[in-house]
Amino acid sequence: MSTTNTAASVPDVVAVGRVCIDIYPEQFGVGLADIRSFSKSIGGSATNVAVAAAQLGNSVRLVTRTGDDPFGDYARTEIARLGVDNTGITSVPGMKSVLTFCEVFPPDDFPLYIYREPTAPDMYLDEGDLPLDAIERAPIFWATATGLSREPSRSAHYAAWRTRGRRPNTVLDLDYRPMFWDNEEHAHTAVSEALDHVTITVGNLEECRVAVGESDPDRAADALLERGVELAIVKMGPHGVMARTRTERAVSRPIPVDVVNGLGAGDAFGGALCHGLLHGLTLQDTLDLANAAGALVATRPQCSLAMPNLADLTAFAAGAAEQASGTTSSV
Amino acid sequence: MSTTNTAASVPDVVAVGRVCIDIYPEQFGVGLADIRSFSKSIGGSATNVAVAAAQLGNSVRLVTRTGDDPFGDYARTEIARLGVDNTGITSVPGMKSVLTFCEVFPPDDFPLYIYREPTAPDMYLDEGDLPLDAIERAPIFWATATGLSREPSRSAHYAAWRTRGRRPNTVLDLDYRPMFWDNEEHAHTAVSEALDHVTITVGNLEECRVAVGESDPDRAADALLERGVELAIVKMGPHGVMARTRTERAVSRPIPVDVVNGLGAGDAFGGALCHGLLHGLTLQDTLDLANAAGALVATRPQCSLAMPNLADLTAFAAGAAEQASGTTSSV
Repeated sequence: MSTTNTAASVPDVVAVGRVCIDIYPEQFGVGLADIRSFSKSIGGSATNVAVAAAQLGNSVRLVTRTGDDPFGDYARTEIARLGVDNTGITSVPGMKSVLTFCEVFPPDDFPLYIYREPTAPDMYLDEGDLPLDAIERAPIFWATATGLSREPSRSAHYAAWRTRGRRPNTVLDLDYRPMFWDNEEHAHTAVSEALDHVTITVGNLEECRVAVGESDPDRAADALLERGVELAIVKMGPHGVMARTRTERAVSRPIPVDVVNGLGAGDAFGGALCHGLLHGLTLQDTLDLANAAGALVATRPQCSLAMPNLADLTAFAAGAAEQASGTTSSV
Repeated sequence: MSTTNTAASVPDVVAVGRVCIDIYPEQFGVGLADIRSFSKSIGGSATNVAVAAAQLGNSVRLVTRTGDDPFGDYARTEIARLGVDNTGITSVPGMKSVLTFCEVFPPDDFPLYIYREPTAPDMYLDEGDLPLDAIERAPIFWATATGLSREPSRSAHYAAWRTRGRRPNTVLDLDYRPMFWDNEEHAHTAVSEALDHVTITVGNLEECRVAVGESDPDRAADALLERGVELAIVKMGPHGVMARTRTERAVSRPIPVDVVNGLGAGDAFGGALCHGLLHGLTLQDTLDLANAAGALVATRPQCSLAMPNLADLTAFAAGAAEQASGTTSSV
């Protein structure tokens, strides 16, 4: 199996979370019943973020687990092919890899059909699977709320955070999918507890509501900052995206694009956020770059295969900034 | 939803059993990791048999249950489109439709990867789902051993057989897939008990061994006939297929073809067997027709979409018979 880093080096980013096989339609605008053919790629939120950060030129190690099947073999190989260190990604004996089907109804309806019964192999992530040295020392540690939905994955996350000691750039993607949880209260409790261990959160209004009970953007950010988070990023849908620290507030407005497939856009945002944090961009520039990455990937049909390299993203972001300054005043 | 028969009429065949969505590769000879695209069709043994019999011009009603999802809607619509009465096929709330992936390594290796956790919707078939009048009166009632692997499906099969009263042409396809059973002993017990209620069995040597503990073709047929079965059909792989009654023994030899995808061939055999039984063909002619149907479908990439009409099958069977008589003596 190929890997892009040795286990001994410390990557720029360690990401822990889901992996799945995306079985996506080759025909858009129709329901599953009328889809004639499907393509396959790797997906899952943390996997997509890892690929997105890697495609921008950063070294990334992904911590996850796959099914014990040919799809799992494919996932590990494809993770490496897309530039992410797959060292130590193991399969769970007797489990199938998770499959995600979708329907694509642009611009805003992308239903998912996820096969992950009785649960996902990545929920079997155990403390022993963690590269603790890399998690402690990496400039960025990225985790997702879904990782807290089942044991032993939840305990593994806490083991990682204990090692990390709430160093800067300990990110929690508030990633909330109701189907992965027993109920919303369970999710709220788990995510709320986790806020004590992270320094950056990323989530949309619904995810902020699950985390802190607030869905007004600024009130949600206030609540997150009060919990000790240093940077709260709130995705506000048609109102763009907001970043709040104790001293700064930045907003990046939506970039008008012809949406092809909105899936993966949020993960592209995450990968570019990592890039901005790693390279010392200002808060506004980081937010604008991440916002542009999301918009660019929304114009592309796939998720992990759609993540831009730095040249493409920079050009797209510059074009978007020029268009915005030419037509409207900045926020 | 369209149907091809009204509930009031009695079809030629009532088939009860599995339905799934086949997500099959569009590239053959490579593993899942290297498959770039997939097509979709309906599958599952009983579904394929129903379609095969219908494509030959017979009226067929399928009794099964689907997932509560767009794939389930597709399955019910596609069953009707392929000429099978879908009256009363319901979805099971909260369950997903079963997916079957395969790899195609001609001529003889076709691994399956079946997503049906925690179980299949068709295992929730209940006595209330059965069209008992049609089951009692139809010339052929077709069931499969897999239907006995879980409750309430197993009890529903017994309810059907009680209504049927071991009328002629009560078929049990010995269809055995280890993954559907707790263990082989469970399968043996269930299938063995079921033999008291059926008059025709169809199975390969492995399936006969599970049913009656014999894998020699004639000893297996003897054991099945001793249990009161009137016609035992034993598929002998490279040695062809054998049909035994208390007074007759017929063998149909393998038809040499360039195999494209062996999946579905056995179900094509089943559909043509129904046709022969319905139309009063001799035992040898029935067996030859069914054998030809299996060979023909093995030359085609799909399963349910590959089932021939009567003109195509008759022409293919005639060609095969001519080739056989010209090159070797008959069995």
